Amino acid sequence: MGALTPTRVAIVGRGLIGRSIELGLLARGAPVVAALDRGDDLSPVREAGLVVLAAPVLENIRLLDAIAPLLSPAAVVTDTGSTKAAIVRAAARVRFVGGHPVTGGTASGPSAARPDLFEGRHWVLTPADDVDDTAVQTVQAFVESLGAVSVRLSPGDHDRIFAAVSHLPQLVISALMHQAGESAGREGLGLAGPGLRDSTRLASSPPGIWRDILATNHSEIAAALDRLIGDLVRLRDDRDGGEVARIFERAAFWKAELDERPI
Amino acid sequence: MGALTPTRVAIVGRGLIGRSIELGLLARGAPVVAALDRGDDLSPVREAGLVVLAAPVLENIRLLDAIAPLLSPAAVVTDTGSTKAAIVRAAARVRFVGGHPVTGGTASGPSAARPDLFEGRHWVLTPADDVDDTAVQTVQAFVESLGAVSVRLSPGDHDRIFAAVSHLPQLVISALMHQAGESAGREGLGLAGPGLRDSTRLASSPPGIWRDILATNHSEIAAALDRLIGDLVRLRDDRDGGEVARIFERAAFWKAELDERPI
Repeated sequence: MGALTPTRVAIVGRGLIGRSIELGLLARGAPVVAALDRGDDLSPVREAGLVVLAAPVLENIRLLDAIAPLLSPAAVVTDTGSTKAAIVRAAARVRFVGGHPVTGGTASGPSAARPDLFEGRHWVLTPADDVDDTAVQTVQAFVESLGAVSVRLSPGDHDRIFAAVSHLPQLVISALMHQAGESAGREGLGLAGPGLRDSTRLASSPPGIWRDILATNHSEIAAALDRLIGDLVRLRDDRDGGEVARIFERAAFWKAELDERPI
Repeated sequence: MGALTPTRVAIVGRGLIGRSIELGLLARGAPVVAALDRGDDLSPVREAGLVVLAAPVLENIRLLDAIAPLLSPAAVVTDTGSTKAAIVRAAARVRFVGGHPVTGGTASGPSAARPDLFEGRHWVLTPADDVDDTAVQTVQAFVESLGAVSVRLSPGDHDRIFAAVSHLPQLVISALMHQAGESAGREGLGLAGPGLRDSTRLASSPPGIWRDILATNHSEIAAALDRLIGDLVRLRDDRDGGEVARIFERAAFWKAELDERPI
């Protein structure tokens, strides 16, 4: 099974990610067979060497079943969802290489799409153990053609790491903004310093994709939430400042590590 | 008891706030009687019409006792701490008007001091019920001379609002950065999108002043932490996406309110 060269790409899902992939490929003159909405007739994927599933995670898993009978034998499938173990498990019937572009914006919807959305960003690839190297190379060439920096992880490592650096932060920041607003009200929020505003950009994220992320990475996210709740309880019950000192000092250490990363 | 005009100011505490007040007053040609470190001989406060306590909260409370016998009968005392009910209770022996400049930076220490640190920022004043209007006017004129926008609140309202918009966010962001770092490690943090970096500026805050803030506003902070933990447990145990939808939608609502505030 060789890769088709140049790979003819079909994209399913026309939100921010799907539409930005389409714009990025078109800007580079790459062959886009079809850019389909989730509800469209999926038969154009027959023509594709690479199918990119760019809907929310649970919808991508459903789409796998729908496209499997249509795919050419050489076709490779990837996705763009934020959790990987669940979809890799569900994709045993196709040549599948999971993908996760780490764009990190809060903008959503096709109107925010940009051809350079992935330029210089990490794009994690999570091939299943039994997928062939050519399939991985096809997907890697695709993401690098969009300017992304590909990184390979196992689906399990991906989900553990992104529970910590993406899923936990999103849930915590939304809960923080929710409680700050409900407790302080409009007038109280008007007295907030810049710290609250700077900290809560993620609180504009719509709930849509997060329901699926929570459902498909639940054990890692629940464990991360429980560890965070443990910290909050230790801070609440701190009698001598020891826990404040310990947690703040470690936080400042990791913050310095985070800020010195190149991307 | 009239205000001395122009008020001769003594500042105790030479961190970011105390030193910025000194620089701001000097830049405006205002009379600074003394800028003292916490351990200095405090007798110069005898000459002051306004004494500004700019050490951490518990130290300010101790300083109140130390300066009380030295003060001229007309002298007014204010402070710059982030909690107000505890110090207002402790200040019954002096003409005291609590103050809280809302600067919201993470820079600390005298080397970060700037004469314009308070320019256009809120500065909350929390007079006790029994303090005279002239004392309040003296402190209000002082903070407005530094370019700040004065806002009057009761000590209890101040502590409830700032538990929500400042103390809770600081504790949560430090705990979030702590857990994200411990779980993901250096390599995992290197994969974080911009969301984590943007959300965790406060994680650089040193623990010093936060021990005192937690100790002196404990009931409000503990209640806010418990409400937040309630949200996190509801998100963790969400079975149908209903809690994700509800909390995210309210968070986005409050975030929009926060972002449209002028300061």
